[in-house]
Amino acid sequence: MTHASAAGTPDLSAVRPGVNALLNAFLDRKAQAAAGPEMTPLFTALRRLLDSGKRLRPQLCVAGWHAGGGCGDNSATLHVAAALELFQAFALIHDDVMDASDRRRGRPTAHRVLAAAYLTAGGRRSRAESHGVSAAILLGDLTLVWSDDLLHNARLDAETLICIQPLLDTMRGELVYGQYLDLLSTDRLSDDVEAALRVVRYKTAKYTVEWPLRIGAVLAGASPDVLDACSAFALPLGEAFQLRDDLLGVFGDPAETGKPVGDDIREGKATVLMALAMRGASAAEQQLLRTLVGHPDLAEGNLLRVRCVLEETGARQQVEKMISDRRDTALAVLDRAPLPAAAAGVLREIAERATARQS
Amino acid sequence: MTHASAAGTPDLSAVRPGVNALLNAFLDRKAQAAAGPEMTPLFTALRRLLDSGKRLRPQLCVAGWHAGGGCGDNSATLHVAAALELFQAFALIHDDVMDASDRRRGRPTAHRVLAAAYLTAGGRRSRAESHGVSAAILLGDLTLVWSDDLLHNARLDAETLICIQPLLDTMRGELVYGQYLDLLSTDRLSDDVEAALRVVRYKTAKYTVEWPLRIGAVLAGASPDVLDACSAFALPLGEAFQLRDDLLGVFGDPAETGKPVGDDIREGKATVLMALAMRGASAAEQQLLRTLVGHPDLAEGNLLRVRCVLEETGARQQVEKMISDRRDTALAVLDRAPLPAAAAGVLREIAERATARQS
Repeated sequence: MTHASAAGTPDLSAVRPGVNALLNAFLDRKAQAAAGPEMTPLFTALRRLLDSGKRLRPQLCVAGWHAGGGCGDNSATLHVAAALELFQAFALIHDDVMDASDRRRGRPTAHRVLAAAYLTAGGRRSRAESHGVSAAILLGDLTLVWSDDLLHNARLDAETLICIQPLLDTMRGELVYGQYLDLLSTDRLSDDVEAALRVVRYKTAKYTVEWPLRIGAVLAGASPDVLDACSAFALPLGEAFQLRDDLLGVFGDPAETGKPVGDDIREGKATVLMALAMRGASAAEQQLLRTLVGHPDLAEGNLLRVRCVLEETGARQQVEKMISDRRDTALAVLDRAPLPAAAAGVLREIAERATARQS
Repeated sequence: MTHASAAGTPDLSAVRPGVNALLNAFLDRKAQAAAGPEMTPLFTALRRLLDSGKRLRPQLCVAGWHAGGGCGDNSATLHVAAALELFQAFALIHDDVMDASDRRRGRPTAHRVLAAAYLTAGGRRSRAESHGVSAAILLGDLTLVWSDDLLHNARLDAETLICIQPLLDTMRGELVYGQYLDLLSTDRLSDDVEAALRVVRYKTAKYTVEWPLRIGAVLAGASPDVLDACSAFALPLGEAFQLRDDLLGVFGDPAETGKPVGDDIREGKATVLMALAMRGASAAEQQLLRTLVGHPDLAEGNLLRVRCVLEETGARQQVEKMISDRRDTALAVLDRAPLPAAAAGVLREIAERATARQS
């Protein structure tokens, strides 16, 4: 449970252990009831993924609950927060399959773990990769189904559950839309910054920040103007969060981010960073980007050449500016929002952390 | 709505148009609210898949409602039935991705439709296949999310919704377990008939027959002994249904089944049929099966050789016998079950149709 500290500020540091305990208890129950010992690799892969992660969505959900005036026992909110984290695990598992990523959060991705388990159990080497992919598709499906299952066991009263279901349904649909927009724009180098920002809005701003915050606030019975303030804070912050992610993907330290640097470039992701670079690039630089971006086997030297263009066109700096502008906008919302001061303080902290992070 | 006929027998022929109308209205609403015109291929692929199909699960759900004593307005049950059909569409989309199937119900599978749409929109030929797969993973996810969304808009009272949620959660988890068991046993030729039957139980008997029937019965407020009768009828019938499917996959007429003959053999599916053949095969025949089964490009002539072994070992006939035994067991349950006579009549009809079908 999250307790208010002596100064009255809600303490979000309790969210992580609280959510972890719920997830572990849930998976222990599922493992006991599972169809058989053959299911073990699914649990191993899911637990490994869940062991890490920033728990940003659960924190935002609990912060939203405080913003909506929640205080005292927050166990129902923590349950919902844990369901959001399971949903996020589903999204990551399928995302890694689609991107054919090897590593996530510094560890092998689920489809790699499942392929390895298949080999260990005597499976054929020639089939291991496709087995891993199929098994990870199923594990993602199971995790999505379980995020509902966990929610239904959150002991929410029926009225509250019915109140948040439409929000969850919208959130889940919007994430998939965002992922599809992302997929469509991949490998199509473009200088359309607005189009890239639209993907960010669906894929991250609404899904990662706005909905967890609003769902938490609704759980506390927040008024419409509090909900409006949540959205006004969340959308610019969510954009800033994704823009930071894009920068870290290209310029970050793999030891900190837990994933190889340059994956977005190798996959040809249509990030805002890349669109700005295309916009500011000379004809020769544009040609260079067209030749190199989207090549899965891009060598280190060529990766460096792309990074140089991202710097020299000023794209990197422009994205930094976009991040700080959006963070400032989000913080300014808090100054005039009708939120309890303590909750606003917590949101301020989250905004600083999410935009200045190194991982 | 399903109306009882003059003779008092519920008329399941109304289920298909009823469910179709709900699905169409739901997808129309979603299309209007969609993130943008880029989403069109997702709708096209899903509608194509939903246009066909036997609507077996919806029929069982409505039959279960009658079995539980339901009569009069069945619109809430039809909504739940439509949600089950959407869930099944999700399962098929991901199943076709995992099996790399080209055709389903006589039409191109979702990942093929999405790959074609990508090419039409100017996508690169070299990326079309992997794009189709990624887009179909997302479409499956969206369809799963939407099956919940549709359920939440079924205007069930809160108490009823909370009553059926655990059943749905269990059903959905069990399907994924069944799919995973199926995946694990694929490409491992074995004479373990019991293991093959276990996959059938999870993947089909419980998922396709038992849960839709029980969920319908619960919606009508069925007593525990009616629910027990539903399960006692459903499990053998569900096994028979899958065994028929396995036979049709090898010996059926593609013009009737809508999918190429021999796919299970080319994929190396561990069906009961194959396990029985391995059990009855001579050393030479076993060797032949080991050499040919599981080859994705198996030529017509070799497919015929495998079919010969399935006939000559008596496996085909044994499966026919298993089907009729199970159908008889299911029918015998109906003779002594505490069900309304009219509902029992409808279930009898379903049992005959599901086990004798050609498609």
